[in-house]
Amino acid sequence: MGDDAAVLEDGLLLATDALVAGVHFSLTWSSAEDVGWKALAVNLSDIAAMAGTPVAAVAAVIVPPTPPGLADRVLAGLAQAADALACPLVGGDTTSGGELALSVAVLGRVAGSGPVLRSGAQAGDTVFVTGALGGAKRAFDQLAEGDEVTPGLLERLRRPIPRLAEGRAAASAGASAMIDVSDGLAADLGHLCDESGVGARIEASAIPAALSASLDDALTGGDDYELCLTAPDVATVSDAFTGAGLPTPTAIGRVTEAKGCVLVHADGREVALEPAGWEHEIP
Amino acid sequence: MGDDAAVLEDGLLLATDALVAGVHFSLTWSSAEDVGWKALAVNLSDIAAMAGTPVAAVAAVIVPPTPPGLADRVLAGLAQAADALACPLVGGDTTSGGELALSVAVLGRVAGSGPVLRSGAQAGDTVFVTGALGGAKRAFDQLAEGDEVTPGLLERLRRPIPRLAEGRAAASAGASAMIDVSDGLAADLGHLCDESGVGARIEASAIPAALSASLDDALTGGDDYELCLTAPDVATVSDAFTGAGLPTPTAIGRVTEAKGCVLVHADGREVALEPAGWEHEIP
Repeated sequence: MGDDAAVLEDGLLLATDALVAGVHFSLTWSSAEDVGWKALAVNLSDIAAMAGTPVAAVAAVIVPPTPPGLADRVLAGLAQAADALACPLVGGDTTSGGELALSVAVLGRVAGSGPVLRSGAQAGDTVFVTGALGGAKRAFDQLAEGDEVTPGLLERLRRPIPRLAEGRAAASAGASAMIDVSDGLAADLGHLCDESGVGARIEASAIPAALSASLDDALTGGDDYELCLTAPDVATVSDAFTGAGLPTPTAIGRVTEAKGCVLVHADGREVALEPAGWEHEIP
Repeated sequence: MGDDAAVLEDGLLLATDALVAGVHFSLTWSSAEDVGWKALAVNLSDIAAMAGTPVAAVAAVIVPPTPPGLADRVLAGLAQAADALACPLVGGDTTSGGELALSVAVLGRVAGSGPVLRSGAQAGDTVFVTGALGGAKRAFDQLAEGDEVTPGLLERLRRPIPRLAEGRAAASAGASAMIDVSDGLAADLGHLCDESGVGARIEASAIPAALSASLDDALTGGDDYELCLTAPDVATVSDAFTGAGLPTPTAIGRVTEAKGCVLVHADGREVALEPAGWEHEIP
């Protein structure tokens, strides 16, 4: 149970994640369709982190009696994600209840070079992240403070895109370990290092932050659904991503034999990277 | 989506079902462990109805903050069912929320003779049910009325046993259609006939009722998780079940070309079999 998805016979992957109103989202800043989308997307992010390809998903939805039409709107968002992310929704179960909650389970399959587990990082490997971090947290905080949200960030929070092609490119480039950044880079890199029995030294100046996000947002913000991976060879990773038409992930540091994650600031100051993850406080 | 589980590539089956407090169960008559058991069992019943074998399951659990220890107890019940019913629980997600809800997804696989769908019933086939019906409803009603519960029935309500071996025996005996009796025989036989484009004539006197259950309980009581199947040859079904060391299912009627289900009473009186299913009113 240490990985994003369970690895079964024949390279099959199985994962589940639930979204609960007031814990993972609020209908004040997400539409019902957004919530449907996100419920499938966060599950597919677990498949991406294993270098898998989606096969099919099922969804169990608990819907309160009001507002009317809520179930249909949630299911429409699920269907949009299923279509856009190429994961057929093949079954479901809708129940009336007190609060909106969605539970999705996804079946995936790994190709020849997968799965990539959390436990394979080796001292000397380079640590990479895809995309930019902290954007979902920044949008969330701006909403909470009643500020204008930086353009582009709201979509990251509402409709994350699982990095499926990136996960497979990482596997083909010999990635030794991988995890999706759902709880924040500090927390998730910590999980990866714990599972691998290693540590890491991360360069603060190298961490790719989303527009307007601080270093702290980028380190502790969850809900980004980017991938953090380790691999022995930088050029191979770069070539694999470029060859797949994907942006090259950013090298942010190195795996160390010494356990614990260390953040190295530009002035040479070193601090322990605390796994202070995403706090699910809904505005 | 017309079947109990979706049929995917390579004979894989995927199904999901959620149990929600106040809708599907009450902790006044089920322990937290029972609820965990039942959440897996009802999903495996969907696999049974397709003649499948469980491969693995994942569970998403939403637990209220009180009583303390609730999550652990629910997970213990899930683990007991996973062990007893030979379906490894390979992943999960626990979230705090306002009301207890469990959503399980099960991956299954069909052998050579499966899957058995709801849509294959042919006029002339015999209709069978496994076990005895109405027991869960009878227990439920006795609880609601504050009466003593007939021995044996409470376990049916709390810890149903999915008919996995029976489903596979039915497939090997050439079953043409199958469904699990989760909403009541009248409703579920109605679904099967609708999907097959046929009707059925059922003999009231042949319906196997659980101890102390009325004919009405047996027809409309849900939560029994027995199987209703159709097959062309009675002797083949009998031999397959006997050969597998299972009680022979009861022949209760015949599939008809004319649509609609008819209940034939012992005195020859015929009434339309109304699909009045399980009413989820929790005492």
